[in-house]
Amino acid sequence: MPLQGEFEWIARIRAMFAPLAAGRGRTGIGDDAAVLPQGGGRSLVVTTDMLVEGRHFLHEKITPEELGRKSLAVNLSDIAAMGARPIASFLSVALSSLADDAFFGGFMQGYAEMSERYGVPLLGGDTTASSTGVVVNVALLGEADDTHIKYRSTARPGDAVIVTGPLGDSAAGLKLLLSGDTAENLTAEEITLVKTHHNPRPHVEEGLFLGAERDVHAMMDVSDGVASDLRHILRASGVAAEVFMDKTPLSSRLQELCTRRGWDARELAFAGGEDYVLLATVAPEALDDIQKRYAEKFNEKLFVIGRIASGSPRIAWTEQGVPRPLDYHGFTHF
Amino acid sequence: MPLQGEFEWIARIRAMFAPLAAGRGRTGIGDDAAVLPQGGGRSLVVTTDMLVEGRHFLHEKITPEELGRKSLAVNLSDIAAMGARPIASFLSVALSSLADDAFFGGFMQGYAEMSERYGVPLLGGDTTASSTGVVVNVALLGEADDTHIKYRSTARPGDAVIVTGPLGDSAAGLKLLLSGDTAENLTAEEITLVKTHHNPRPHVEEGLFLGAERDVHAMMDVSDGVASDLRHILRASGVAAEVFMDKTPLSSRLQELCTRRGWDARELAFAGGEDYVLLATVAPEALDDIQKRYAEKFNEKLFVIGRIASGSPRIAWTEQGVPRPLDYHGFTHF
Repeated sequence: MPLQGEFEWIARIRAMFAPLAAGRGRTGIGDDAAVLPQGGGRSLVVTTDMLVEGRHFLHEKITPEELGRKSLAVNLSDIAAMGARPIASFLSVALSSLADDAFFGGFMQGYAEMSERYGVPLLGGDTTASSTGVVVNVALLGEADDTHIKYRSTARPGDAVIVTGPLGDSAAGLKLLLSGDTAENLTAEEITLVKTHHNPRPHVEEGLFLGAERDVHAMMDVSDGVASDLRHILRASGVAAEVFMDKTPLSSRLQELCTRRGWDARELAFAGGEDYVLLATVAPEALDDIQKRYAEKFNEKLFVIGRIASGSPRIAWTEQGVPRPLDYHGFTHF
Repeated sequence: MPLQGEFEWIARIRAMFAPLAAGRGRTGIGDDAAVLPQGGGRSLVVTTDMLVEGRHFLHEKITPEELGRKSLAVNLSDIAAMGARPIASFLSVALSSLADDAFFGGFMQGYAEMSERYGVPLLGGDTTASSTGVVVNVALLGEADDTHIKYRSTARPGDAVIVTGPLGDSAAGLKLLLSGDTAENLTAEEITLVKTHHNPRPHVEEGLFLGAERDVHAMMDVSDGVASDLRHILRASGVAAEVFMDKTPLSSRLQELCTRRGWDARELAFAGGEDYVLLATVAPEALDDIQKRYAEKFNEKLFVIGRIASGSPRIAWTEQGVPRPLDYHGFTHF
């Protein structure tokens, strides 16, 4: 959830530090992670994320284990989005009086589970008391061949826009969480969506696969929703995009939920966020081959949801080729 | 300020992650920073620190610029303590409603000042809103020749124990801050001590100098007070120490303050903390030469405050060679 005026601040801070960062081939603010060339054709890739109780999670809704897993997962997703392999994490935790030893034990259990799943050691950190809520900060280091690293600024007109998984499940889970319904009032399918929101799976191997493909041009992860995130690629690359609304990958679980509750599945898919799938642009001539090999390797589809075009950084939403006079923004109703 | 039971937790977390970290020459939890060998005789050094409003600073006492400088300074001090050169920082900030744009602007101004002073670019970060207090997390990367990196575990019996600056000024400043006296009731000298507490100078060049000396064995920075920090070296190295209380380096400003207010200067010096000078152990035969070259380079003294001995990790406090039946611990009265 961006801070009010976050993007203006990012631009100011970027300008403030540009002279210090210049001339060393280092790129930082603006992508999912910073890149520090190490020589020998390898780079270090670094990201950091802060999770604040009451903003990013609700103490009474998420389990300590889930919070531990999610704290690392969202950072793994950023490293994956660069086409890099995660190598070490650093964890800072401020614990409130509500967060006792059992809470911290569960949190660390979840964090360790996610660390083991992706082979990433925790190499340092800081623990402190907080007089208010729980705050978690993770800094994650990755490494990659220089030629495998993907940026937001390298989309080209004609590229296919792809995502590595269905959209909207996480947003639906959050909406269910905030609906005020208690777990007893939710169906098993609805509880699964809430779990999806609390247990994102970072697409680490998928990111490494796409990173190694020369014909994958731009890449990032979907944290604020495609409507918001794709605009980052468009602005950074100086291009426009068409999004095929009828090609939105939606899980059957989400479709059934939205039919039952009268919710707009596409709005959840495009404006919802926290899917932590990868969003990339691919040279059209290479698309079939990459889709085929991706399906063979992961037994999953790459979903084509749009096309990059020349022009100013705007999204044209279409349905079966027909323009639709609407617009989605992260967390904004249309 | 360590969390209740922090050290027990650190031991548990260390054991939890040992299998993942093993076999790659990486060392993490237990020193001021983690070390990741990069090949070619070079290593990456990484530290992270979290500052929480109400625990590490008081919103109404510290200026935004000071908080910005201090947030980076305490991390620079950790990198200096490893004998490494800082190369890039990553900053996460959670801002409360009390912290407006002017606050954040001042904070970033101070952070940029400290970044420029030490030539360290900010390459990434995260900003978020907090419903409660301000929380700042910095992750700082450094680099060093493998042979220059200093640990806590390498002190040897016979080593001289040295510090790179006077002790206790910062603790005195904090004590004045918490005394309830308003600025109008403080003398100019007292205000200078408060400023020292809010404006630590990380000993970065000093750390690089000492890191390059083969005869400097163990090193860390003084954040919790020598009484607490030296015990970390003793435990990690499996040695004991004698501390010469009559050799405590005290500023004349601190001595005058303590005389005037009836405070114990030595207690502030040993149990106070946040001095952010370096604490190191040096082979006795090399001490004179290192002191001489250090004084020539920095126009400052290296202060000898004790000696490492064989034995279990305990400090013997002496005054002109006579044992004193007392003990200091970080923040504990004797």
